[in-house]
Amino acid sequence: MPKNHNKKIGFLGPWGTYTQEALVKLLPVSEEDLIPYTTEADVIKAVERGEVAKGMVAIENSIEGSVNATLDVLAFETNLFIEKEIIIPIHHCLMARPGVKLEEITTVISHPQALAQCRSYISKKLPRASLEIASSNADAAKTVSEKSGKFAAIGPSLAAEIYGLDILDAGIADFEDNQTRFVLVGKEPAPRTGHDKTSIVCFIFEDRPGSLLQILQEFAYRYINLTKIQSRPTKKALGDYCFFIDIEGHVDDEIIASALKCLRCKVRDVKVLGSYPMANGVTS
Amino acid sequence: MPKNHNKKIGFLGPWGTYTQEALVKLLPVSEEDLIPYTTEADVIKAVERGEVAKGMVAIENSIEGSVNATLDVLAFETNLFIEKEIIIPIHHCLMARPGVKLEEITTVISHPQALAQCRSYISKKLPRASLEIASSNADAAKTVSEKSGKFAAIGPSLAAEIYGLDILDAGIADFEDNQTRFVLVGKEPAPRTGHDKTSIVCFIFEDRPGSLLQILQEFAYRYINLTKIQSRPTKKALGDYCFFIDIEGHVDDEIIASALKCLRCKVRDVKVLGSYPMANGVTS
Repeated sequence: MPKNHNKKIGFLGPWGTYTQEALVKLLPVSEEDLIPYTTEADVIKAVERGEVAKGMVAIENSIEGSVNATLDVLAFETNLFIEKEIIIPIHHCLMARPGVKLEEITTVISHPQALAQCRSYISKKLPRASLEIASSNADAAKTVSEKSGKFAAIGPSLAAEIYGLDILDAGIADFEDNQTRFVLVGKEPAPRTGHDKTSIVCFIFEDRPGSLLQILQEFAYRYINLTKIQSRPTKKALGDYCFFIDIEGHVDDEIIASALKCLRCKVRDVKVLGSYPMANGVTS
Repeated sequence: MPKNHNKKIGFLGPWGTYTQEALVKLLPVSEEDLIPYTTEADVIKAVERGEVAKGMVAIENSIEGSVNATLDVLAFETNLFIEKEIIIPIHHCLMARPGVKLEEITTVISHPQALAQCRSYISKKLPRASLEIASSNADAAKTVSEKSGKFAAIGPSLAAEIYGLDILDAGIADFEDNQTRFVLVGKEPAPRTGHDKTSIVCFIFEDRPGSLLQILQEFAYRYINLTKIQSRPTKKALGDYCFFIDIEGHVDDEIIASALKCLRCKVRDVKVLGSYPMANGVTS
């Protein structure tokens, strides 16, 4: 029997990540119930093992697109449910140990998504800096706080505060309106609220180019709104895709259930990642 | 007037990248006509400035999906044409300076796509190593050859040879059949060959969830095969996407021209990234 830590929630750590910020906004949690993990996959697998009751991970960013690591674990490696979602604004800061100046920086450390979101800024302001991947933005800040060289991290101001860094520049993402969608993952399907969204992955038969059209027609025919579609390789060969699709409605709604039933007759497999209450815009 | 370097071809350098390997397989080029650039965006912009006649960049991998940096520059920042494509198998090796052992490695350096393609290998075999981003796999090998610490690069065996590194492990990607599609970009549309593919980007109106269905219907109605579809954020807000679509046929084919004409009446914009001869499978 797995240990019963019913109240514990895993999140992409260490302390001070955007994920923690999103989690605290989404749920009334006390810090002692939170357990930081190193990667998105670690968070999700800790839920599956029963180490934590639920886990919080980023799934999509408005600049850089889907968080592939999260999508791939949910689609290929676990059978969990998305239970809630929240969208928060992302304000990236460049931070370094007190005394280090912008022009001295030799290495910028951050999560790959944050480095990609600030691609133009880095190539303009720090063209010679080397880029190092951290498992999270807060982990980048922590690493910078422990190193004596001319390092900088990209992350939230909260991380600068926690790890004693100075903020050298703020609002450094390449596009305005930088937002990230986070999801809370658990073992129980969320009940219908009447204002829900359902995330599915459709695995199509190879060499049937009309499959995506057939999928979309099932929804269009029933006036079901799509809020997201994202193709991902199935890791087998170029051109072999699966589709991550978000639709409005709950699997317990008759119309959604009927659409999924018909879909299952037409494609190789449909995996439901969860039905959950739809976020009402951005929570700042 | 830009300088006339008609024969010169830019590629993602330095010497020894998979991009160079793909380029040499695609065209009868001599080394003196090749100019290495640091990033995919640099290659494409050098073509636009007329510094080189054509440029070679990776566009899609069978494990990690689209190369976002390439898609974004082609869609949002230039008006060039894809003229040719080639798919080659990717065999990732872990390489280090002679004498460095696998278990001693503290840092793994590579292109973000290669790091993502070897995610499981790294977390199993080198769980404590830090990950550093290089602008290419060959650049990673070059950097490792110049550093005295316990560094390793992920890249092609050719790069190990060029930069005097030892191969510690081979075939380290997380899935078999790792393939990458590369495209040659230039200023002239390629002529019709009868065995062509067309790449387009569709920008849809916001808040019209049926747009993608309408796009696909235009092609299905005419029995035009789709070989790829990929959504990308337009960088404005979450849920605002454009679609990268590859279809079989040439813009000079009457049926394709007619489909694009009808599409343009329905969506905000359709940008043709090029019609070019379709690759016949993988070139090994």
